[in-house]
Amino acid sequence: MSLKLYFAPGACSFVPHSLLETTGAPFEPVMVKLHKGEQNEAAFKAINPRGQVPVLVDGDEVITQIPAILQYLDAKFPEQQFLPRETLARTRVLETLAWMNNTVHPTFTHVFMPQKYAGSPEAQAELKSFNARVYAGYLGEIEALAQRAAARGQSWLGGERLGPLDVYALTLLRWGGFAGIDPTGFQALWAHVQKVAQQPGVARAIERERLQLNLYKAA
Amino acid sequence: MSLKLYFAPGACSFVPHSLLETTGAPFEPVMVKLHKGEQNEAAFKAINPRGQVPVLVDGDEVITQIPAILQYLDAKFPEQQFLPRETLARTRVLETLAWMNNTVHPTFTHVFMPQKYAGSPEAQAELKSFNARVYAGYLGEIEALAQRAAARGQSWLGGERLGPLDVYALTLLRWGGFAGIDPTGFQALWAHVQKVAQQPGVARAIERERLQLNLYKAA
Ligand SMILES: N[C@@H](CCC(=O)N[C@@H](CS)C(=O)NCC(=O)O)C(=O)O
Ligand SMILES: N[C@@H](CCC(=O)N[C@@H](CS)C(=O)NCC(=O)O)C(=O)O
Repeated sequence: MSLKLYFAPGACSFVPHSLLETTGAPFEPVMVKLHKGEQNEAAFKAINPRGQVPVLVDGDEVITQIPAILQYLDAKFPEQQFLPRETLARTRVLETLAWMNNTVHPTFTHVFMPQKYAGSPEAQAELKSFNARVYAGYLGEIEALAQRAAARGQSWLGGERLGPLDVYALTLLRWGGFAGIDPTGFQALWAHVQKVAQQPGVARAIERERLQLNLYKAA
Repeated sequence: MSLKLYFAPGACSFVPHSLLETTGAPFEPVMVKLHKGEQNEAAFKAINPRGQVPVLVDGDEVITQIPAILQYLDAKFPEQQFLPRETLARTRVLETLAWMNNTVHPTFTHVFMPQKYAGSPEAQAELKSFNARVYAGYLGEIEALAQRAAARGQSWLGGERLGPLDVYALTLLRWGGFAGIDPTGFQALWAHVQKVAQQPGVARAIERERLQLNLYKAA
């Protein structure tokens, strides 16, 4: 019955946040201020001991991990068709979703929170610069996905409906700005992400999180 | 029709390898020697441009990423019930699977292939030691899962059937030995993993890969 989403502005929680807004279902958005360390306070750790957003709460059930939350939302709101039903098309989306979640996303974490991976300032500085380069390469792979979708006349990265790949791509490209990567350099992806941002549910999530899409500042 | 699995002995490809063996379906196992760099040779990159195992080939379809491969196998061999059907039980398994795949697995990669994350020998050495400690903490979380399953009288980590979590747990605990972590220190998990290793399909994959479960050498 009662749905609640713990999110942090601009964080990866934007992925379920924007899809949940897309459903039109009522839910309670609960903001967690990562820059104030609220994710490590006892109140939040009682909900998610790992101290991370997103967390979806549905009645008594507490669900973490983006791929699990998204597949739960897909099952709960089948009319949205967030994921294709047919096995092969679904597998294709799950494959790219897994890669974004297990490879691209953690690479950015090295740039944003290097202290999760190394203790010394020297190693942390090296992690930031090395992984910003790796990250730019991954954005290039997502650009290729956007180009392929456009060439096929396909409106969304996963098929005929707005879905997880579109809003994850928006989040990842936006993060690039923090890593010193100009999003407008990825032309097909930048065009796609601007279209994604205009969809009503996505636009509401952007407004609540007060997000600016292009964070890049030329050096 | 024709199923093929690209795997490397002891790598994460063990997860689909052992479940595919469990189905009893015929498939062609193709070994990729990571220590010889075969994953970066043109022949393999033509199959998976990202240069990684596992890769499942089903007829003309090439599928990568463990969570996608596993869900594809679950759909193709429904009688195996690798994943629960009911949404909430399924979500619980997908949640732990995602965490193993996006957090625990990449943490080990820092220990095994630090060159993926930093260039200098100093930073690489720091990544190895720092992340071996983090990894031990994650194995502690999997130990807690094994304890909870045992306390509930539940035979497998995901429910009533052998599934992805059991064989991923085996792989991750085994990798701990490389990271200087004694697997027998995690009592419930070590007992569970030994039971998993004895299941016929898993045992066949272990034999093909010539795996030893306990790689730990006391310092
Ligand atoms: N594996 C998790 C990752 C979640 C994650 O990376 N959350 C970040 C925000 S993007 C976070 O809460 N970081 C705060 C922290 O780690 O202190 C998932 O897929 O949901
Ligand atoms: N995100 C991939 C990770 C696959 C992966 O880490 N593969 C490793 C073996 S455990 C590999 O092939 N490494 C060789 C390399 O990166 O050079 C998945 O979930 O399937």
